[in-house]
Amino acid sequence: MLKKASLITLMLFGGSLSPAGQAATAGAATTPAEGKTPGEIVAQAPKSDWRAIAADDLLVMDLGNDKRVIIELTPKQISNQHRNNVVALARAHWWDNIAITRVQDNYVVQWGTPSSARALPKGAVAHPRQSYEFPRSNSGYRPVKSRDSYAPDVGMVGDFPAASNGNTAWFTHCYGTLGVGRDYAPDTGNGTELYIAIGQPPRHMDRNLAVVGRVIEGMHYIATMPRGSAPMGYISETDPPAGTIQSIRLMSELPRHEQTAYEVLDTLSPSFDQYVQARSHRLDSFFTISADGADICSMIPPVRKATS
Amino acid sequence: MLKKASLITLMLFGGSLSPAGQAATAGAATTPAEGKTPGEIVAQAPKSDWRAIAADDLLVMDLGNDKRVIIELTPKQISNQHRNNVVALARAHWWDNIAITRVQDNYVVQWGTPSSARALPKGAVAHPRQSYEFPRSNSGYRPVKSRDSYAPDVGMVGDFPAASNGNTAWFTHCYGTLGVGRDYAPDTGNGTELYIAIGQPPRHMDRNLAVVGRVIEGMHYIATMPRGSAPMGYISETDPPAGTIQSIRLMSELPRHEQTAYEVLDTLSPSFDQYVQARSHRLDSFFTISADGADICSMIPPVRKATS
Repeated sequence: MLKKASLITLMLFGGSLSPAGQAATAGAATTPAEGKTPGEIVAQAPKSDWRAIAADDLLVMDLGNDKRVIIELTPKQISNQHRNNVVALARAHWWDNIAITRVQDNYVVQWGTPSSARALPKGAVAHPRQSYEFPRSNSGYRPVKSRDSYAPDVGMVGDFPAASNGNTAWFTHCYGTLGVGRDYAPDTGNGTELYIAIGQPPRHMDRNLAVVGRVIEGMHYIATMPRGSAPMGYISETDPPAGTIQSIRLMSELPRHEQTAYEVLDTLSPSFDQYVQARSHRLDSFFTISADGADICSMIPPVRKATS
Repeated sequence: MLKKASLITLMLFGGSLSPAGQAATAGAATTPAEGKTPGEIVAQAPKSDWRAIAADDLLVMDLGNDKRVIIELTPKQISNQHRNNVVALARAHWWDNIAITRVQDNYVVQWGTPSSARALPKGAVAHPRQSYEFPRSNSGYRPVKSRDSYAPDVGMVGDFPAASNGNTAWFTHCYGTLGVGRDYAPDTGNGTELYIAIGQPPRHMDRNLAVVGRVIEGMHYIATMPRGSAPMGYISETDPPAGTIQSIRLMSELPRHEQTAYEVLDTLSPSFDQYVQARSHRLDSFFTISADGADICSMIPPVRKATS
């Protein structure tokens, strides 16, 4: 057994500014934020560039043995019956004490109890209006300059990666996206069954399924679940359990002393602009060639526990 | 505990052809392969559309407890000192009995023994010529119609996803890509330390690090390794072991009766064209909207155990 070496250790969140000479060789079309790494930009962002995430925009998923996953819900402002359903179901403790039913490598982790098995709680509707897209105007959609394989235009809506065709916009599927499972008919997903994307972002699901959130902490608990051996990653009777959900709660429903406050790098802040620039033009001294572009899923705004 | 429901079960590899009416509503610009799903196209591809992978293009990574990972090496035709080094190091059993040193969620799994600790074997060079790119002409580069966030053009070189700027081409980092770790100086990676990408493809590493292979089987053993708690996912002294490599061998070096033959959907075959089309235009009846595009990392040619 030998100890770790440095290697690509230094690739992400490099410790020091690139010297000017290095930055000059990076081949970037523009010069972002004086050659800082994305990690440095985040570390140095002033407090005013961070925004608190409301406790009723957060889900707390407990998997037992102190495994806690925190999920941010899509913005309330984008009125959406799927999101409303998920909130109503969380308040009703819908997903408590159930096993993860599906873990497909490079695709999704999935769980839930269909509403055919149990009456929906108050506030949830059986057939949410399909709102996989929403009008771009008044959504706060803010374009990010980047080519995209799936959409003419990409950007941010609130803290979420999104895409647009000009008239409508939609949330994109990325690593850690929470979505609403459904059957063949597009109106069959009501939030009782949910999935989280793992691996290569399943962007072909954009506009076909309802995105309702994103994992902001504990994603590794989801991503490391043992894969199911049945077709499409379903957990078979002979598989070891992939995981059991003890509870999913709104953060705001927990006793005050058990709540944790989070903040997100404000997508309207100068630091976020620099972050996007640095993601698109790597000028860290590790890099010799910069792509002049980046995937929208690699520009998701960073989150941290709130500082006081 | 309740049993699994159908839900997005049917999304990938749907069981039946889309009825014509469904296909007509999918909004695709062209009509690929009569509305078959990608899975159907693969299942129905004639034997002549599959190509055997040579046993000396395969690495067999054993992690103990029957956990076996199979890696396909980048094409010999793209002469590359990094690939040659990896082959020489595998023949010398360089990575046997070492622990995985780094598991960073949504980034890389990494291992190796630096050549500062041990003399390089015959056939390996200390400072391989940087060949993160290669001339596009004569590489067999075959463009795939798709917009890309990182490169002007994407395509395939042999069985590998690639990108090009017209003059040069390079292999792209995707989920499961095997690459050569290095330090700050671009010529410091000699194959003694390797990484596999997990999560969101780290495409910003394209042209900055040497891609030498891709996982074709057992990727879940890599992706589910417990993440390291030290900065950048390094395994700390107090972490449980992430995994131990018993051995990495060329498939051709195993005794005949222990060898497994694999074949890949030939990227020059009609079935692969249909596969790419279907990935870009989802016409399965599950989908109501098709993106008219797809990420090059979602078009990687499928592999199967050879049929006789």
